[in-house]
Amino acid sequence: MGGDSGPEVTVPALDAAARARPELRFEVHGVADRIEGLLARLPALRGRIEVLHTDKVIDGDAKPAQAMRRGRGASMWNAVEAVAAGRAVAAVSAGNTGALMAISRLQLRMLGALDRPALVANWPTARGRSAVLDVGANLVCDAERLVEFAVMGAAFHHASRGAGRPTVGLLNVGVETEKGLEAVKAADQILRAGGFEFDYIGFVEGDDIAKGAADVIVTDGFSGNVALKTGEGLARYFRDQLREAFTGSPLARLGALLAAPGLRRMSARMNAVSGGPFLGLNGVVVKSHGGADATGFANAVFLAADLASSGFLDELGRNLKPRCEEAAS
Amino acid sequence: MGGDSGPEVTVPALDAAARARPELRFEVHGVADRIEGLLARLPALRGRIEVLHTDKVIDGDAKPAQAMRRGRGASMWNAVEAVAAGRAVAAVSAGNTGALMAISRLQLRMLGALDRPALVANWPTARGRSAVLDVGANLVCDAERLVEFAVMGAAFHHASRGAGRPTVGLLNVGVETEKGLEAVKAADQILRAGGFEFDYIGFVEGDDIAKGAADVIVTDGFSGNVALKTGEGLARYFRDQLREAFTGSPLARLGALLAAPGLRRMSARMNAVSGGPFLGLNGVVVKSHGGADATGFANAVFLAADLASSGFLDELGRNLKPRCEEAAS
Repeated sequence: MGGDSGPEVTVPALDAAARARPELRFEVHGVADRIEGLLARLPALRGRIEVLHTDKVIDGDAKPAQAMRRGRGASMWNAVEAVAAGRAVAAVSAGNTGALMAISRLQLRMLGALDRPALVANWPTARGRSAVLDVGANLVCDAERLVEFAVMGAAFHHASRGAGRPTVGLLNVGVETEKGLEAVKAADQILRAGGFEFDYIGFVEGDDIAKGAADVIVTDGFSGNVALKTGEGLARYFRDQLREAFTGSPLARLGALLAAPGLRRMSARMNAVSGGPFLGLNGVVVKSHGGADATGFANAVFLAADLASSGFLDELGRNLKPRCEEAAS
Repeated sequence: MGGDSGPEVTVPALDAAARARPELRFEVHGVADRIEGLLARLPALRGRIEVLHTDKVIDGDAKPAQAMRRGRGASMWNAVEAVAAGRAVAAVSAGNTGALMAISRLQLRMLGALDRPALVANWPTARGRSAVLDVGANLVCDAERLVEFAVMGAAFHHASRGAGRPTVGLLNVGVETEKGLEAVKAADQILRAGGFEFDYIGFVEGDDIAKGAADVIVTDGFSGNVALKTGEGLARYFRDQLREAFTGSPLARLGALLAAPGLRRMSARMNAVSGGPFLGLNGVVVKSHGGADATGFANAVFLAADLASSGFLDELGRNLKPRCEEAAS
């Protein structure tokens, strides 16, 4: 029921996902009449979808605490419960982010010593995509937390982009080891010691993100959120400036027309993939952007399927557990 | 002597500055032969420039501590000393940033309770320019420090962009008052209480920077540096993508030619003004970008002149002193 358009977007997205991946089956939570009305024209979903009715929905502006206290029985709650009960391997929602995070923590619990899930941004770069985390959930991070982000980002990279040892960089204000916040310098020491399923490349700076200097870029949730939103704002500014440059005169408009294929490729590459997983939960939950269209929501479903089928949670368990026991001993 | 090209850039820049501002006079520190060789062809500087010889120069890769211990008598040292001695109202250098900051702190001292100068970025926005600070000098900031940045950013805005009460925003991960780092929330409370020579507009997010949501955007040096460098990296990525879009086919190349005037205007607008002042010193010191051309270095000279002639230091003294006494009592 989530997102700006509800089932009118999410149900056709499931149809597209069903056609692309014959192994997928769906349990859908929401207003049954509305959902079943859409199914009539979507034959690929027949026999592969179960609609579980609820007319309780969590508002887009509900506070996380409200959602936890009063959310039981809502469509979002029931979708996450399907994962907690083992009926589903992953939950996907385009609804209220804070509510989804709170309900997921409550029902699925966190892995190891983590407190809150990390949010990961799938950042377009000169070399493809990099995973940047945390982009807003954990504002203050000690060294251990940053190391956990490195482990989770690497597992995410494995699961979503296949084989190969990912490279991991730690975001800092300089590449010299004497610079930076204490927590960042301490995390650098732990990561340098090695023993991980990724290659640590050391400190990176803000301008290394767009270069694709590492597959995974680790930072605290405050700086990560600032970087992500600054980038989004700048991308919008570029697009506006470009539109202005191309509509300034009839000749410029003709120029835009001639260069259109290249400009479209560029625009497609610069769009961040909308939404992403909550990393660190004891289960797979993917948040799709509220404004996503059917293609965007289908991409979130594919990502959820990839995470669930790739041993992502096993890799996390393998790499997070020992460290937490170490810290506890 | 600083910057990638030394006097071959800085001396012609002074000539341009001298022609634009008849009231300016210059004291230039460096290798006299090299500088005087350039003056022969620059008549506007005649009678308005004094060349003080030194062949000691601070290397581009010298550490700040080295520069402080062994910098006495170097061109950069002597330029700052001219301000400390009251012979000059401002110093401008295109040399080593860390060395210039260390030498400036040592000779000029900080205003009030400040520990290190703040670096300000002159960020291009949809509405002109915004001052973003701190972009790298003070990594960890308490609430009082963030409030001082607000005061300094506002004074900088007054001095460099003329009359009018500037608006100030505090960078955060959301606009709701319950979100964010403790220091940021505490600074918000102090700024809300008012009594400043600017209008505080509350929390802003990363994407508000490019919108020009406030004249001054305040954040700690870690997040500010990450935001600035992320933005620089993205701008480079965007330019590369645009070049690719416009060279993909002969038609695209023709398109680029037709849209060239608009694209050039856009590019000029997107270039950040290179360099900026060190805010919080008991004197005016402006750092020009090492790679600046004569126009860029002349802009740094104009900025220094504006700061020195506008009552900038008085405004800082007026707004910083009382708070420090308050804090001490």
